[in-house]
Amino acid sequence: MHETARRLGLLDDDLAPYGRDVAKVELRALDRPRRSSEAGRLVLVSAITPTAAGEGKTTTSIGLADALSRLGHSACLALREPSLGPCLGMKGGATGGGAARLVPSERINLHFTGDFHAVTSAHNLLAALLDNHLHFGDPPHLDPRRISWRRVMDMNDRALRSVVIGLGGDGVPRETGFDITASSEVMAMLCLAEGEDDLRRRLERTLVGFDLDGKPVTAGQLRAAGAMLALLRDALRPNLVRTREGTPAFVHGGPFANIAHGCNSVLATRMALHHADWAITEAGFGFDLGAEKFFDIKCASAGLDTACVVLVATVRALKMHGGRARRDLELPDAQAALRGLANLEKHVESIRCFGESPVVALNRFGADTQDEIRVVERRCAELGVPFAVSDHFERGGEGAI
Amino acid sequence: MHETARRLGLLDDDLAPYGRDVAKVELRALDRPRRSSEAGRLVLVSAITPTAAGEGKTTTSIGLADALSRLGHSACLALREPSLGPCLGMKGGATGGGAARLVPSERINLHFTGDFHAVTSAHNLLAALLDNHLHFGDPPHLDPRRISWRRVMDMNDRALRSVVIGLGGDGVPRETGFDITASSEVMAMLCLAEGEDDLRRRLERTLVGFDLDGKPVTAGQLRAAGAMLALLRDALRPNLVRTREGTPAFVHGGPFANIAHGCNSVLATRMALHHADWAITEAGFGFDLGAEKFFDIKCASAGLDTACVVLVATVRALKMHGGRARRDLELPDAQAALRGLANLEKHVESIRCFGESPVVALNRFGADTQDEIRVVERRCAELGVPFAVSDHFERGGEGAI
Amino acid sequence: MHETARRLGLLDDDLAPYGRDVAKVELRALDRPRRSSEAGRLVLVSAITPTAAGEGKTTTSIGLADALSRLGHSACLALREPSLGPCLGMKGGATGGGAARLVPSERINLHFTGDFHAVTSAHNLLAALLDNHLHFGDPPHLDPRRISWRRVMDMNDRALRSVVIGLGGDGVPRETGFDITASSEVMAMLCLAEGEDDLRRRLERTLVGFDLDGKPVTAGQLRAAGAMLALLRDALRPNLVRTREGTPAFVHGGPFANIAHGCNSVLATRMALHHADWAITEAGFGFDLGAEKFFDIKCASAGLDTACVVLVATVRALKMHGGRARRDLELPDAQAALRGLANLEKHVESIRCFGESPVVALNRFGADTQDEIRVVERRCAELGVPFAVSDHFERGGEGAI
Amino acid sequence: MHETARRLGLLDDDLAPYGRDVAKVELRALDRPRRSSEAGRLVLVSAITPTAAGEGKTTTSIGLADALSRLGHSACLALREPSLGPCLGMKGGATGGGAARLVPSERINLHFTGDFHAVTSAHNLLAALLDNHLHFGDPPHLDPRRISWRRVMDMNDRALRSVVIGLGGDGVPRETGFDITASSEVMAMLCLAEGEDDLRRRLERTLVGFDLDGKPVTAGQLRAAGAMLALLRDALRPNLVRTREGTPAFVHGGPFANIAHGCNSVLATRMALHHADWAITEAGFGFDLGAEKFFDIKCASAGLDTACVVLVATVRALKMHGGRARRDLELPDAQAALRGLANLEKHVESIRCFGESPVVALNRFGADTQDEIRVVERRCAELGVPFAVSDHFERGGEGAI
Repeated sequence: MHETARRLGLLDDDLAPYGRDVAKVELRALDRPRRSSEAGRLVLVSAITPTAAGEGKTTTSIGLADALSRLGHSACLALREPSLGPCLGMKGGATGGGAARLVPSERINLHFTGDFHAVTSAHNLLAALLDNHLHFGDPPHLDPRRISWRRVMDMNDRALRSVVIGLGGDGVPRETGFDITASSEVMAMLCLAEGEDDLRRRLERTLVGFDLDGKPVTAGQLRAAGAMLALLRDALRPNLVRTREGTPAFVHGGPFANIAHGCNSVLATRMALHHADWAITEAGFGFDLGAEKFFDIKCASAGLDTACVVLVATVRALKMHGGRARRDLELPDAQAALRGLANLEKHVESIRCFGESPVVALNRFGADTQDEIRVVERRCAELGVPFAVSDHFERGGEGAI
Repeated sequence: MHETARRLGLLDDDLAPYGRDVAKVELRALDRPRRSSEAGRLVLVSAITPTAAGEGKTTTSIGLADALSRLGHSACLALREPSLGPCLGMKGGATGGGAARLVPSERINLHFTGDFHAVTSAHNLLAALLDNHLHFGDPPHLDPRRISWRRVMDMNDRALRSVVIGLGGDGVPRETGFDITASSEVMAMLCLAEGEDDLRRRLERTLVGFDLDGKPVTAGQLRAAGAMLALLRDALRPNLVRTREGTPAFVHGGPFANIAHGCNSVLATRMALHHADWAITEAGFGFDLGAEKFFDIKCASAGLDTACVVLVATVRALKMHGGRARRDLELPDAQAALRGLANLEKHVESIRCFGESPVVALNRFGADTQDEIRVVERRCAELGVPFAVSDHFERGGEGAI
Repeated sequence: MHETARRLGLLDDDLAPYGRDVAKVELRALDRPRRSSEAGRLVLVSAITPTAAGEGKTTTSIGLADALSRLGHSACLALREPSLGPCLGMKGGATGGGAARLVPSERINLHFTGDFHAVTSAHNLLAALLDNHLHFGDPPHLDPRRISWRRVMDMNDRALRSVVIGLGGDGVPRETGFDITASSEVMAMLCLAEGEDDLRRRLERTLVGFDLDGKPVTAGQLRAAGAMLALLRDALRPNLVRTREGTPAFVHGGPFANIAHGCNSVLATRMALHHADWAITEAGFGFDLGAEKFFDIKCASAGLDTACVVLVATVRALKMHGGRARRDLELPDAQAALRGLANLEKHVESIRCFGESPVVALNRFGADTQDEIRVVERRCAELGVPFAVSDHFERGGEGAI
Repeated sequence: MHETARRLGLLDDDLAPYGRDVAKVELRALDRPRRSSEAGRLVLVSAITPTAAGEGKTTTSIGLADALSRLGHSACLALREPSLGPCLGMKGGATGGGAARLVPSERINLHFTGDFHAVTSAHNLLAALLDNHLHFGDPPHLDPRRISWRRVMDMNDRALRSVVIGLGGDGVPRETGFDITASSEVMAMLCLAEGEDDLRRRLERTLVGFDLDGKPVTAGQLRAAGAMLALLRDALRPNLVRTREGTPAFVHGGPFANIAHGCNSVLATRMALHHADWAITEAGFGFDLGAEKFFDIKCASAGLDTACVVLVATVRALKMHGGRARRDLELPDAQAALRGLANLEKHVESIRCFGESPVVALNRFGADTQDEIRVVERRCAELGVPFAVSDHFERGGEGAI
């Protein structure tokens, strides 16, 4: 761990270890002046509309960062931490794969440093305070039918989505439900917070429902923010791990892109930018669902600026967009890939709408043919977009830049 | 941390740090031969029937261990870890107080090493699998009205005690509820387990309910044990912290004495016994509610033997048992203390029933008068029970032994 | 119908027909002076502790009334009307059997004159008003957790016993349930009411729950009594039918003896007493569960007085009380009957406690032996209690008086 | 009653009286040959799109029937019976008003002959059998999440719309709710049935939900139809009352036009057609919502044919359709009425689509001016539609024909 930290110029005192090979980094590490005179550059890795298997945003990010490191650059990743829920469900882990992988992957995929548990606890503490408040009938007089704050659990638990609580004389009966922790507003606040004070302010103004006169009621009015903050204090510090090749990676914050803004934490992104020359981050699912949130929520909130956008594509996904059935994606079909390029073109157009420069990284799979790859390369040339094949990642990363 | 570990003869490799001043200890540390030729001795600290304020089992345990350390003995604590639920509620923390305190107390009282979160996750994973099983109607065909496995949360959340889940078409509607994590059967299993294999066997045979033919259904039949074990692997390793004076303390496992067996983990107790000459542990509320579980469940399951039982008493509690109103406990009243000694005598009798030798430790408060203390001392002499006043703990501890 | 009515001296104008052979009788029929100079005499038919099959209170009542009629006396029954719920369930109808039967039995057992439906509507109207009241938050501010007024249905519907209502945003969620109409407090009030004004007063002071300050809230406060009364106006008038032999019978009110006072209506009993010389009524299950309610609730409320109490016994039930298994009750066993007489003796003692004179009527079944009957007869002689065998009812009735 | 019945040629034996002035008519009265050689003619009264107050379909029907009677024709009404629910709520009764009224109106508006209660009982019996079936797990194995049969109550009870039943260990928990009796499918079946056998067949094929294999389950499979029919036998016989002027009226069946087909019963319509020369019936709200159901469901099912369609209009409603605010409808405004005629024209067009001849009846209110009325008259002349002002009904009825 200390070796990894030293690559970023972090002091031993900045680190609070969590098991082996994982540490939380103190926020004060952001207060020291940057080592390098130049500002760090932020690379956003996004993707064309993905197939069910995912197109490799995370592996491409890791490969890119490792490539930069190998080329002698100072690079650091800033990624999202995985949710226990889908990990225990059917989706694979979220720590990359093959040679492009974060370590220690099993720990990252399970409890990691407890950030999700802390978010769960803080979120549910507010819910418990709220129901206690209802039970005792204290002012402000919450309308039990207009409480919007639900509970969360870091688990895919279908049976908890719609529940009636407060039965048996305990509390006030009402309809509510549990969401997955990754979609908690507390997670979103943690990811957008600039520090403890900012997080406290965000917690205080959280809307929990309405009173009997129809006026909004906030967590601050229920005096919940202090205890929530106490539970979140450790979770606010970014987690430092590394890639299998040793490139440092901040893995911190895991809001879902479909229901939340879907970016890793602002503090982790700042840490990467502050201590390295290249910070590589990812957002959303496809560029369409994610980039808007990255730019309009995260960057707007945090004042971040992006050097370039890497658009990950695969021949598989292009063939699917070109109309091939899912079971036939392994069969060569340059024509289908050609038809599917309409999807890539639209994403390129969208990236340019944000005033950003796209780079296409083709994440190569074993079944891809030269014909198919050439079709993509040619179109990128026509579009004036830099193109690279990410194969073993060394070459791929190099080409991409 | 490493200084503390070294006092126990632990190697750096045995430790997985969790933030500063906290580490988990690898189970393999139990496999190396004991340093000292003599077997470690186990001291159980219990109490007379307590007042609402508690009579100081934890502070007395800490004071006793610190005293033994000061006297040059090798001593180690084996205590329970606190539940987040009551901590955020009205009860004070569970890390001792005054000079007799564990550090880092705030972290121990909040998320600590995530053991409670791991138990919560494992417990609720089984519940989610079970409801999923019901939803898809897979065999064994669980009877939704005879499922005994509820959910848990590390929170005092009254509104969740009785709920109806599975509404809105998600899952099968049924009545259930949430308990507090400290009362989870998973917590009890974690505390009684001798290692991973033993824990897996315990998890597998956990009863979750009955099928439509009235036959019991276990977690093993739902193939839940593997995933539960994965979530519990880290939590199974005892947590090492220290007292403010530097005495090592294993703080691990937190089952409630009222609804579970209420002792810290067998593995932590073994760690303390294996690496020190004196292991000090605690059990239950009063000796009556707790000692039976300590001897008949924990010791029977783990084959432990106790060197002596320290019975903590306070003048306050004796006066309360002697009939004084709660608001008058500060007023001197040796007669009330005398009447209250009936409670102490009964506990002494109970301890002797288990074939153990009692030692009375009077946890002294500022308002105690010499008259009151002498009343207790005299009765102990009559009962043939060693007696000591625990004042500043140095002297107290010394006297107790 | 008119023939039956004329036997009681009722005018055509007193009758409101309900289908053929059934009529409601106007309350003004009570205002005309009694035809006969002597006051009518009230006979209560009760029973020893019954077997599951029932010992024949209703058939004995009918037989007794028919016997009195045959002997030239003016007799009239005053019985309870059956509940649709158990009728559609497993229990047989409640209109007697064999030669001793009310007609038209099918109509009486089904909707009859709609009294149960009226009670159901009035009861549930109050519940609907109450939940509407909660929904709009009008004063008095009902505490949703302390509402004691449930809903009713004239149906054995297990799934409605415990329900959560007010979900989906309609109304205020709360736990409640449905009882069977026969157990409704509205039914009890209808049966005890002396007229419309009295019923209105009873409805007004009905307790429905408590407000947030713990003060009781009544139906009157919710302004529900007027509408409830409108729904109950027709139901308040006693229903007149007849036995197969032509004896008039008021069948009116059907509260359950286990959960309500279990007697037919005061108004029907008054009608029978006013228009006949002998009014025969029944109460409870066994004399123990029912007679207390008859004397202390119905008679006390209505100022009624009883001429004698007929205690119905069967050899079957005596043998059961004497220890015979249920499947062996057909086998002759005078010894078992003898042992079972303890039950009869206790009931005789109870009747005397109320200052009443018991008469034992043995409801004879085909399997009864002379030995068994003689055992009962002898004990009755010892007890100084008149005894009669009710066989074909003509003789039985004669003997009983 | 008997006078009214005799006007229709009914025998005393055809009648089962229900209180005074109300009788049920035996179905065998349809089996005797028609007195008159000509077939009875059916007049459908419908309306333009109504205001909240209603435009007077029922009063116009009554007025029309009374007018025909006064002119010496044999006329009979066939109307819907009112629901207790809205009657106790805010909506007025459904027995006409002013001089054009059914008697005895109060009884018709309350329990009447218990038809709604019978439908409620039969409907809920099926629900109770179904939940009992679930509870015991008998085949066919119903899927508790796919049961479409809810419960009904003749009450506006918002809190029962969405409920969870089967709690407390009684039955199988599931989400369901109560509808208003008027919307029950049993009510619709009762109204479309041609007799007991037909009703039984309809009951048997009623869909209640789906089994675990997704196959439909019917009431017949749960063996519920027999008991339901027993409860509905009396309700199936049409109820005979009369107008204040003595014209006979069958008031039978009350399905809601918004959620059911909204016509009175086929058997009552047949009774009116069979025993009179003119049968006057009504359907729906406006002609658009109701007539389609009358023609395509009721007439198609029963093979009925309509002689003419009376379209009721009011100057009030026309002014509203012409854009006047609701509070200004009393002010004279012939221009607004003119603009509102678009609504009337569309309904005339719709009536002609069904191949029927429309007649417009203007239901006159005190505030209507000659100008306004003339506007309507003129447009009707242009449309070639007979037009009449229904004022005191004598003249109105005369004109309409």
